[in-house]
Amino acid sequence: MTMREERFSVPLNLKQVRITDEFWHREQELVRTEVIPYQWEALNDHIPDAAPSFCMHNFKAAGKMMKEKKKKGNAYVEPTYTFRGFEALPEDAEHPEEDRFYGFVFQDTDFSKWIEAVAYSLTQHPDEALEKIADEAIDVVCAAQLENGYLDTYYIINGMDKAFTNLRDHHELYCLGHLVEGAVAYYEATGKDKLLKAACRFADYVDSYFGPKEGQCKGYPGHEIAEMALVRLYQVTGKEKYLKLSQFFLQQRGTQPYYFDTEEEVRASYAGGKVIPNKNPMRYAYHQAHKTVYAQDEAVGHAVRAVYLYSGMADVARLTKDEKMLEACERLWDSITKEKLYITGGIGGTHLGEAFSFPFDLPNDTAYSETCAAIGLAFFARRMLEIKPDRKYADVMELALYNTVLSGMALDGKSFFYVNPLEVVPEACHKDERKFHVKPVRQKWFGCACCPPNIARIVSSVPSYAYTENDDTLWVHLYMGSKLTKKVGNKELQLTVTTRMPWEGSALLEVTTEENTGIEATISLRIPGWTEEEKSSILVKHQGNKKNMTRVSEDGYVYLSGVWESGDTIEVTFPMEVQMVSADTRVRENVGKVAFMRGPVTYCMEEIDNGKDLHLCRVDVDSIEKVRIEKNTELGLPLMFLKVPGKRDKKVEGEGLYTKYKQSELIPTELTFVPYFVWNNRGEGEMSVWVRV
Amino acid sequence: MTMREERFSVPLNLKQVRITDEFWHREQELVRTEVIPYQWEALNDHIPDAAPSFCMHNFKAAGKMMKEKKKKGNAYVEPTYTFRGFEALPEDAEHPEEDRFYGFVFQDTDFSKWIEAVAYSLTQHPDEALEKIADEAIDVVCAAQLENGYLDTYYIINGMDKAFTNLRDHHELYCLGHLVEGAVAYYEATGKDKLLKAACRFADYVDSYFGPKEGQCKGYPGHEIAEMALVRLYQVTGKEKYLKLSQFFLQQRGTQPYYFDTEEEVRASYAGGKVIPNKNPMRYAYHQAHKTVYAQDEAVGHAVRAVYLYSGMADVARLTKDEKMLEACERLWDSITKEKLYITGGIGGTHLGEAFSFPFDLPNDTAYSETCAAIGLAFFARRMLEIKPDRKYADVMELALYNTVLSGMALDGKSFFYVNPLEVVPEACHKDERKFHVKPVRQKWFGCACCPPNIARIVSSVPSYAYTENDDTLWVHLYMGSKLTKKVGNKELQLTVTTRMPWEGSALLEVTTEENTGIEATISLRIPGWTEEEKSSILVKHQGNKKNMTRVSEDGYVYLSGVWESGDTIEVTFPMEVQMVSADTRVRENVGKVAFMRGPVTYCMEEIDNGKDLHLCRVDVDSIEKVRIEKNTELGLPLMFLKVPGKRDKKVEGEGLYTKYKQSELIPTELTFVPYFVWNNRGEGEMSVWVRV
Repeated sequence: MTMREERFSVPLNLKQVRITDEFWHREQELVRTEVIPYQWEALNDHIPDAAPSFCMHNFKAAGKMMKEKKKKGNAYVEPTYTFRGFEALPEDAEHPEEDRFYGFVFQDTDFSKWIEAVAYSLTQHPDEALEKIADEAIDVVCAAQLENGYLDTYYIINGMDKAFTNLRDHHELYCLGHLVEGAVAYYEATGKDKLLKAACRFADYVDSYFGPKEGQCKGYPGHEIAEMALVRLYQVTGKEKYLKLSQFFLQQRGTQPYYFDTEEEVRASYAGGKVIPNKNPMRYAYHQAHKTVYAQDEAVGHAVRAVYLYSGMADVARLTKDEKMLEACERLWDSITKEKLYITGGIGGTHLGEAFSFPFDLPNDTAYSETCAAIGLAFFARRMLEIKPDRKYADVMELALYNTVLSGMALDGKSFFYVNPLEVVPEACHKDERKFHVKPVRQKWFGCACCPPNIARIVSSVPSYAYTENDDTLWVHLYMGSKLTKKVGNKELQLTVTTRMPWEGSALLEVTTEENTGIEATISLRIPGWTEEEKSSILVKHQGNKKNMTRVSEDGYVYLSGVWESGDTIEVTFPMEVQMVSADTRVRENVGKVAFMRGPVTYCMEEIDNGKDLHLCRVDVDSIEKVRIEKNTELGLPLMFLKVPGKRDKKVEGEGLYTKYKQSELIPTELTFVPYFVWNNRGEGEMSVWVRV
Repeated sequence: MTMREERFSVPLNLKQVRITDEFWHREQELVRTEVIPYQWEALNDHIPDAAPSFCMHNFKAAGKMMKEKKKKGNAYVEPTYTFRGFEALPEDAEHPEEDRFYGFVFQDTDFSKWIEAVAYSLTQHPDEALEKIADEAIDVVCAAQLENGYLDTYYIINGMDKAFTNLRDHHELYCLGHLVEGAVAYYEATGKDKLLKAACRFADYVDSYFGPKEGQCKGYPGHEIAEMALVRLYQVTGKEKYLKLSQFFLQQRGTQPYYFDTEEEVRASYAGGKVIPNKNPMRYAYHQAHKTVYAQDEAVGHAVRAVYLYSGMADVARLTKDEKMLEACERLWDSITKEKLYITGGIGGTHLGEAFSFPFDLPNDTAYSETCAAIGLAFFARRMLEIKPDRKYADVMELALYNTVLSGMALDGKSFFYVNPLEVVPEACHKDERKFHVKPVRQKWFGCACCPPNIARIVSSVPSYAYTENDDTLWVHLYMGSKLTKKVGNKELQLTVTTRMPWEGSALLEVTTEENTGIEATISLRIPGWTEEEKSSILVKHQGNKKNMTRVSEDGYVYLSGVWESGDTIEVTFPMEVQMVSADTRVRENVGKVAFMRGPVTYCMEEIDNGKDLHLCRVDVDSIEKVRIEKNTELGLPLMFLKVPGKRDKKVEGEGLYTKYKQSELIPTELTFVPYFVWNNRGEGEMSVWVRV
C-alpha cells in the first residue's frame, strides 16, 4: 500500500482517557493493587519463595561504586570479571555481596518495566504514596549512571572495558530501550523529567557510540526494543537524532558481513582464540538478523524479539515515510497472521528459541505462545493501525488482548503464565521433559521476569490500544467503557463510551462538547471482523432522533464526519454469535477438530467442568444452533460460558494396548467451554481449546 | 509365576539350523554381502562420506603402546589426559595421530559388534576370506590387551590411572560386555578361542576388581550389557564366577548410597572440587539404577539400556532360580507391553535420554523407537521364553522383528534408521528442531554406530529367536523356512520347515530321523496371538495320514509329544486376516484413529502411494471387508500391500487461518498401506501408521 498521511494517527494520551467499564477496570485494578506492589517487593528481593531479582540491589551496588569513583577522582580501578550473562547467588550465601552484580544481564529492565507500569497506572489512578516510592527508586537508578551517560549496571559493576562487546547476547541496548520506555511513560504521566533526562543521556551516549560515521560502531541490538523506544523518545523530545538512531539500528540489521560475526571474532581475538565459522545463513534468524529488514518476508526466530522489531519498523516506516520498510512490515504481518498465529492470538510455536516454527506448525500441547509475544503482537498491530486503520490489525490486536495476554495473569493477579498452551494434560507437563516449559498452573514470579511486568504495562495502558487520533479524527479500535477527551483545534470533544464487551456486541457513545458548541470532527468506528457486517448497525442520533453525518466505510472502519454536539449519541450493534471454527487444513494438529469463539473471546474446555480425558470429547457439529450461552459469576466476575451438545467416546482401557477396532460407544454429554483467559483459575487440570468433531 | 524347570530352554545353536526361506534368507544375505563388508570398511575409516569410527585405529594405537611397553620393561610412562568421552579429529588434521584415541569412549564395541555378526554369518554361510579378515582383526584387538587382561583402548591409550573411575558414563563394562558377546559367538561359530581367551582374561580382571569382598569395587555398569554377556561366558566356559559376577552387578544396581554418587564424589575430590548433591530420587532412572532391580516395576530411562538390563535379569533369574528377580522381569515386561509399546514393536517414546516416556505417552511423530531398543526387546522376550514359553513373549518378539528391527535397514542394506517414527512429515524433520532426531530418510552410517551392527547381529542370528530347546523338546516360536537338527539323547531329529511367513499363515514341518528310527520327543508350536485360535489348525500326519500324538495346549503353545519318525509332517494353518486395530484410549495420540496389521506385520501409508497430506486421509471403518490384499514386487521382493477404502478431506487452504466450520468435503479414495518395514525405500515423503476413521 502507499502511505496516506491523512490516515496516520497516534495513540490517545492516557491522561485524556479514563477506563470505566467493568471488564478492563477490574484488570487495571488488579495490576494497581496486586501486580505493581508485588513487583516492587520482587525488585527488592523481598518475596520469600520467589527467585530474587537483584534488580534494585544491582542499581545500589553500581550507585555505590559511582559515589566512590567520584570521591577518588578517576583513580578508581575498574574490576575485571568473567562474563557469564547470569550470576547466581551461591547456594550457601546468606546475602548478596554489596558490590557485586547478580541475576541476568538484563536485570535492570525489571525496574524499567515496573516504572512504566507505575506511570500508566498513575494516569488512571493517581497515588501519591506510589509516586513517592517511584521517585525514590528513580533516585537510586540515576545514581548508578556513569558520567558519560552509560547506564547498565551489569557492565558498570563488572567492568566497562567489555561494554558493547557482545551486542548479540548481552542486552545492553535492550536495557536502554526499556529504560527509555519507562522514562517517557513516567514523564508523560507525572511531568517529572529526572528519569527522562537520564534516559536521554544514555541514548545520547549510545548515539555517539553507534552510527554511520567512521569510527562509530556498526552494531545493533541482539534483543530488539530500542528501535521503538527511541521513536518514543523522539516523539516526546522532538530530537530527530533518536529517530535517526532507531533507523540506523534497523537498516544495519542483517547487513553483511554480520556484525554479530564481527564482534565475536573481535572477542575471540582478545581472548587469544579463534572462532570456528558458522556458515548457516539462518544462524541469526533467532535475532531476525539473518537478512536486512527490507528483505525479510517470514516471521522467524524468537517471537518476542520479532514483534518488537516489527513494531520498531512500523514506527520508523511511518515517520520516515519508508514505503519499502512498510512493505516488509506487511509481509511479516501476513506471515504471522496467515501462517503462524494461534486462535488465541498467541505466537511462537516452539519453545526451542521461544520461537516461531515453520508455517502452519502450530502444536497445541507443546506451544510456546509466550504472553510477552502476544503483547508484542499487540504493539505491532497498534503501530500498523497508526499507519493505516484496517480492521485486520485491530482484530488480531483484540484477539491477542482478550485471550493470550489476559490468560497470562490469574484472576487474582497473583500468578502468571509465561507459556500459553492450547492443550494441557498435567501429567505430561510433570513427566515429559519435552513439555516442561508448559506449566499446568500459573507461577508466582520468574527469575526472568518479563511476562508479569509486561502484562502490567499493557493492561495499564490499554486505552492507548483502544483509541488513536490525528488532528480531527478519533479512531475507536476497541470498544471499552471509558470517558475520553479529544482536542480538535482548541476545542475539546468529550466521549463517554458504555459497553458490555466482550460479552455483548454493542456500545453506546455519547458526545459532549465544551460549552455546548459544535465541533467538526470525524469519529471512526471499527466493525469487528467477528461480526456479520450486514447485521451490524451504527446509528447516530441527536437527543434520540436520527442525525445525518457523512459516512464513509473503509477497511472495516466507518468514518462519521460532521459537526458533533452535546446530546449526540452513536449506537453501535454488532451481532455476537457463537462461532464454531476450523483451521486451515495445513494446520495438521487441528484436522478433524473445531474451536469455539464468541466475539473476540476464544473458548476452551477444562477438566473441572468436563471430567478427565478431554481427548475423548467430541462436538455435535450439527447442533451448533443448540449451543447455550450461560452467564456465570462463580469465578468472581461476570463471564459467559458455552454449553455445547457433544459426546464422549467410552474409555477402552486395559483390554490390551492395541485391540481389534470396534465402533466407539458414544455417551451423549453437554460440554462446557469457558473463556480461554480464565482457564486454570480453579486448580490444576486438563484443558483443550480444540475438540474433535 | 513359579519357575518350572521342565519348561526351561536355550536357543538352538546356530550351527544346528540353516535358514532357507525367501524372506529371512534375503535379509541374511543383505547383512552378509552389504552390511558386514561395509561395516569393516567403516571400522577402518575407509568410507569417505561417513563419520570415521577410529575403532581399528584405536586398537592399533593401543597395540603399539603395548609393544613399546614390553620393549621398555615397565619403565613406560603412561600418558595423562583430559577426559571428555569423545575425541574428535581436528578439522584441519589430515590423519589421526598414531598414538591417540579418537571417537566415543565406547568405540571399541564397533569391532565387537562386527565380529559377532561375522560369527553368526559364518554359521549360516561359511566364508574363508571373511574368516581370515576376522582372524587378523582379532590379532590386532588382542595385541592391545594389557597384561592384567584389561582391554578398553580409551583408557589404555589415555591413561590407566582413570580406569573404572566413571562407570556411569564411560562404558568400560559395556565394552567388556560386547567383547564377550563377540568372542563367544566367534568361538561357537569357528571353534577358534583366541578372542574368547582375551575376553575371559578381561572378564577375570573385572571379576577380581569388582565384587562383594572388602576392597573390591562395588560399582556396576552405566550402560548395561555385561550382565547378559557374562551369562553367555558362563554358559560357554562353565565357569560359575562369570554368572556370579553378573549377579553381583545386578544386585548392586540401585543400592544406596548410589555407587554413581560415590564415584562422582571421589572423582571430584581428586580434582580438588566438590559435588553439588543431586537429590532427585529419579536421577539414575536413565541408567535403571534408581532402585534395586528387585524393586523396579516400571520400564524407565534409556530404552536400550533398560531392555539389555532386563535381558540380563531374566538370564540370571533363570540360572539362579531367583523368583523375586523373575517377578521384577514380569512387572517390567507388563510395564512395557501394556503401557509403553508402539504398535510397530518399538519402544522409547522420547528422544530426551532416548528413553521411555510415561505410561501411554506414545507420540507418533516425535517417537524415538530406536532400532537397537526393538532389538533389545527381542533379547528380553527370547530370554523370558527361555524361562517360560508363553506366546505373549513371542508375539512381541515377532512384532519387534518384523517391524521396527527390519525398518532399521534399507532394502538394499546400505542405509539405516536409528529412530523409527510412526508418522513423518519431512518438512517438520527438516525445520523443527524438536524433530531433528527423526530422519525422513535412512542414513549411511552413524558416528555412534549402534543400530546397523545390531541389525547385523540379530538378523544373522535370527534362528536362535525362532527355536529354543531343552533335552527332549523343541519350541517353534517363530515360523521361518529352515532346516534344523535337534539332538535327543544321542539321536538327531531333523526338521524341515517350509512357510511363506509373514505373508501366509501356514507352515509345513517335515520330520526326518536318523536311519529312520523313531525318536521320542516333543515339538511345541506357538499359535500366534494375531490369529483366531478357533480357526487355526495343527495337523500331524504320517505319510499323509493322520497321526495321533499327545497334545497339550499351554500358554499359546501346542505341545506334540510322542515318537517321531521320518515321513511325519505337521501342517500348521493360522488364518491371517487384515486387522483394523485401535489403541487403548489412554494413548491420546491415537484417539479416533486406526492402524492396520496382518499377521505380525504392521502397515503404514506413504506419500508416494497416497499423495501429500496424509493427515487428511480417513478410513471407512465399515468397509473393512472390502480391504484388498495386493501382491506387489516393485520393491524387489514379494510383498503384500493393502488397499483400503477411504476418503480424503478436501483441502481448505488460504481462506484464512481460522474460518467458520463447514462440513468437510470428502473425496472417496482407495488408500494404499505398505508394510511398515519397507517404508522410505522409494524416496523421501510423508508416512503414517495411524489413520483417522
